[in-house]
Amino acid sequence: MPEWRNLDELQSFDALRELPKVDLAAEMAGENGARRVSRYSVPMAAGLAWNYGAKAVDDRILSALRDLAREADFTGKFRALYEGERINTGENRLVLHHLTRGQLGKDVIEGGVNKRMFYTEQLRRIADFAADVHSGKIRNEAGQCFDHVVQIGIGGSDLGPRAMYLALRNWAKTNGKAFMEADFISNVDPDDAAQVLASSDVSRTIFILVSKSGTTLETLTNEAFVKNALREQGLDPARHMIAVTSETSPLAHSDDYMAAFFMDDFVGGRYSSTSAVGGAVLSLAFGPSVFEAFLAGAAAEDRLALEEDPLKNPDMLDGLIGVYERNVLGYGSTAILPYSQALSRFPAHLQQLDMESNGKSVNRFGEPVSYPTGPVIFGEPGTNGQHSFYQLLHQGTDIIPLQFVGFRKSQLGTDDVIQGTTSQQKLCANVAAQIVAFACGKDDADRNKKFPGGRPSSIIIGEELTPESLGALLAHFENKVMFQGFLWNLNSFDQEGVQLGKVLAKKVLSRDTDGALRVYSDLLGI
Amino acid sequence: MPEWRNLDELQSFDALRELPKVDLAAEMAGENGARRVSRYSVPMAAGLAWNYGAKAVDDRILSALRDLAREADFTGKFRALYEGERINTGENRLVLHHLTRGQLGKDVIEGGVNKRMFYTEQLRRIADFAADVHSGKIRNEAGQCFDHVVQIGIGGSDLGPRAMYLALRNWAKTNGKAFMEADFISNVDPDDAAQVLASSDVSRTIFILVSKSGTTLETLTNEAFVKNALREQGLDPARHMIAVTSETSPLAHSDDYMAAFFMDDFVGGRYSSTSAVGGAVLSLAFGPSVFEAFLAGAAAEDRLALEEDPLKNPDMLDGLIGVYERNVLGYGSTAILPYSQALSRFPAHLQQLDMESNGKSVNRFGEPVSYPTGPVIFGEPGTNGQHSFYQLLHQGTDIIPLQFVGFRKSQLGTDDVIQGTTSQQKLCANVAAQIVAFACGKDDADRNKKFPGGRPSSIIIGEELTPESLGALLAHFENKVMFQGFLWNLNSFDQEGVQLGKVLAKKVLSRDTDGALRVYSDLLGI
Repeated sequence: MPEWRNLDELQSFDALRELPKVDLAAEMAGENGARRVSRYSVPMAAGLAWNYGAKAVDDRILSALRDLAREADFTGKFRALYEGERINTGENRLVLHHLTRGQLGKDVIEGGVNKRMFYTEQLRRIADFAADVHSGKIRNEAGQCFDHVVQIGIGGSDLGPRAMYLALRNWAKTNGKAFMEADFISNVDPDDAAQVLASSDVSRTIFILVSKSGTTLETLTNEAFVKNALREQGLDPARHMIAVTSETSPLAHSDDYMAAFFMDDFVGGRYSSTSAVGGAVLSLAFGPSVFEAFLAGAAAEDRLALEEDPLKNPDMLDGLIGVYERNVLGYGSTAILPYSQALSRFPAHLQQLDMESNGKSVNRFGEPVSYPTGPVIFGEPGTNGQHSFYQLLHQGTDIIPLQFVGFRKSQLGTDDVIQGTTSQQKLCANVAAQIVAFACGKDDADRNKKFPGGRPSSIIIGEELTPESLGALLAHFENKVMFQGFLWNLNSFDQEGVQLGKVLAKKVLSRDTDGALRVYSDLLGI
Repeated sequence: MPEWRNLDELQSFDALRELPKVDLAAEMAGENGARRVSRYSVPMAAGLAWNYGAKAVDDRILSALRDLAREADFTGKFRALYEGERINTGENRLVLHHLTRGQLGKDVIEGGVNKRMFYTEQLRRIADFAADVHSGKIRNEAGQCFDHVVQIGIGGSDLGPRAMYLALRNWAKTNGKAFMEADFISNVDPDDAAQVLASSDVSRTIFILVSKSGTTLETLTNEAFVKNALREQGLDPARHMIAVTSETSPLAHSDDYMAAFFMDDFVGGRYSSTSAVGGAVLSLAFGPSVFEAFLAGAAAEDRLALEEDPLKNPDMLDGLIGVYERNVLGYGSTAILPYSQALSRFPAHLQQLDMESNGKSVNRFGEPVSYPTGPVIFGEPGTNGQHSFYQLLHQGTDIIPLQFVGFRKSQLGTDDVIQGTTSQQKLCANVAAQIVAFACGKDDADRNKKFPGGRPSSIIIGEELTPESLGALLAHFENKVMFQGFLWNLNSFDQEGVQLGKVLAKKVLSRDTDGALRVYSDLLGI
């Protein structure tokens, strides 16, 4: 059993705090900078590498971080998690998202069920279903093939699968794997569903209803909305809908759906892209083999996360440096900056993953912690962000650590040489330039044009964004967030902070309000 | 001539700092909370209202903020700006975006030109051009009408116009104003342009090239990319492209474009949605009358911003309270949370507007300031965000002020009663509930389920998101950011922080690199 202690109870954290800080601008100058960038790199899975040359660390700080990882027993805690301890203490649940894509330790048997086999079985059922849809064995009322899939879900049932779909859409087109177009309905705002429906041929659409409990307000509302639209066109909703839900939910064994695929309480919404939640929509859109490759990339990254030495474990080291930046250097937010238009919604997914997991003020025993925990996460793809909020990143009064992502090749391969270079080369030149500009800065007699530098970043570099590398990228951040939660001594797997709003919204809808809530309800015309 | 001083040189700021802080959770409880919400509201233009009942202020703090506005001479500075002083000191330029939508003071004559007439004339030319496209007077090579418009631009030429287009797209469909579909190409990532082109019938598309200087790397690259695609289909680019640029740029008088519409150096990119930059694409998409209504809403909000008393000036008061939160309460970021799917990209626009304007460390005289300036801005539409990062907002260790937006009516009007209420009612119930949950919190013996409350927010409430109310919303935030820049004594209208990256990217592309930059270039395969 691992021992759970607060960050400020760890001796190696005190030691870390005492170390001299790195003058990043000085360290990154000249050939010393070149040496740092060459040395400070850790291989990730699927051919990716995490380069932390421009982080404000040196060998002494790295050594102290290694001590911290050991004292915090990262590896023991991770093992406890993937071998089925009830790490999610508040809800008394196992945390098994790693099992959806591989077997890291001994079998996990829960309620008499081998959980790895359970997840695998669901994905096999999804693969069979997708194959039947693609082959035309499953057709609509008029005998036509389905060519469109719409996921109805919110939060983890939306952000992750949507980001993954957008990330692979162009890759699939180039590689002959674009089977069905996908759309997503999430918001309870009726304009969201209405717009997707208006631009869809619903007669040829399969809707995936994703709700673990089968009780999520937004999702059930949008399901009813969609069913009405199907009926208005004389269609039978039961021939157009499938469910992804828990086996005990009201949706699990219902004639309202062509099929139901199962998840369980041990894979949180924000960790569910590799479960049936992502599996159904991605297998329908791109075919089961693409989803399998995505899982293989994630599983390979998980195996790297087993490594005890953080200098060989990119997920662990990223997490450690992030805590150093948050709790020693005092930085309050982190920007996610993928230089890849396909990753346009990846920052929004990481925003949920990180902020919902570690945005907490009490430790896993329910005691308040006395140090800052999860930072604000935000971001947009480059180069767009350069022409937007980078001004503040370069010259603002707060320092904001940056996470870049870049690929040597584009996905579509459609490119032109303009002024002697391709667009992809321009894209890559910009991310290289930004890292150095942030780290090194530039002096200028006109202080308005002076760049202080010393703004730390890391970059994940790969050949191309593929199903495998996307899986590795996703797992990297999941594992990073997990290790940070260990260090902050949080339960990263519940989300009690979303409950109060739900309770109060129900009160408003049942007109059971007083005080400020009554006035706001009146102002909003409810 | 107004007097420009740093925030910490203002006596009324010292007085503000000394005032007792408000216990927001206590103040917002019970009928006192109801009274606050009823009282703390300022009308905005176009039927909107800015309600700050849930901000951590009381009458004493408001009175001190009023003193601050007076001592900082907000109204005098605003007047100097709209009457043509060179407020953008670094670039020695006027700041005239208000003139694109109205005349606030005396005529501004610059270089012998009445600037208001110049902007009006460009919008009239755009209106005529759009009318000719819509009527079929302007057609493609095959004699077909154009039905699609694609804007090529980045930063302010992309984020604002894109956010405005998405905000009005459904409204236009409902109100018979949907003339042309619009898309946007911004990123130098070749997959961005390739994807838009792949899903477009380019033979029926008008491309708008937007670049003030005519030298923006991304935009010229994407222009060449688009021209190649047109030529490959045997089409003449000059019959498919128009330019929005400055009169002195190489694009201004070129046979490569059907027409050129002009902007100038006195309207910054991030303030250009109401200029020809937003005017061309929005007039083509929705017709000139919709764009005029949008301008009218912005102009009406500008006139409110003339009011000297901040309690009657929502833009000024929002700015003042924001500075109080940043510099007295010490909050480092702000979340923008519109409960409207149509505003899905409005937070991204405000992110640029705010972070590029006020993300600076030196005052307008180039001297370092000793206080924090612009915060990090991020956000997503509700209710989606509730199922994502709200966990941290409710229970994280940092307090993050929140800006909600809500409308009583949806745009499409397609709605169903499910479980006794419409989706729109559920949406509004959620935003009301969240405000109260953030402000008041909830005690619980299980500290994991305890909500500390005391998390401040304001909400802009309107009847419906229309062209007029969107204009007012946009101008509100532009003016808020302007007033905050006055208080921080910044030049909010330049962006020197974007230059260094451009210079280094050019070095990479010309292989003129050493040190860390060389290694990063190698790793990225350039």
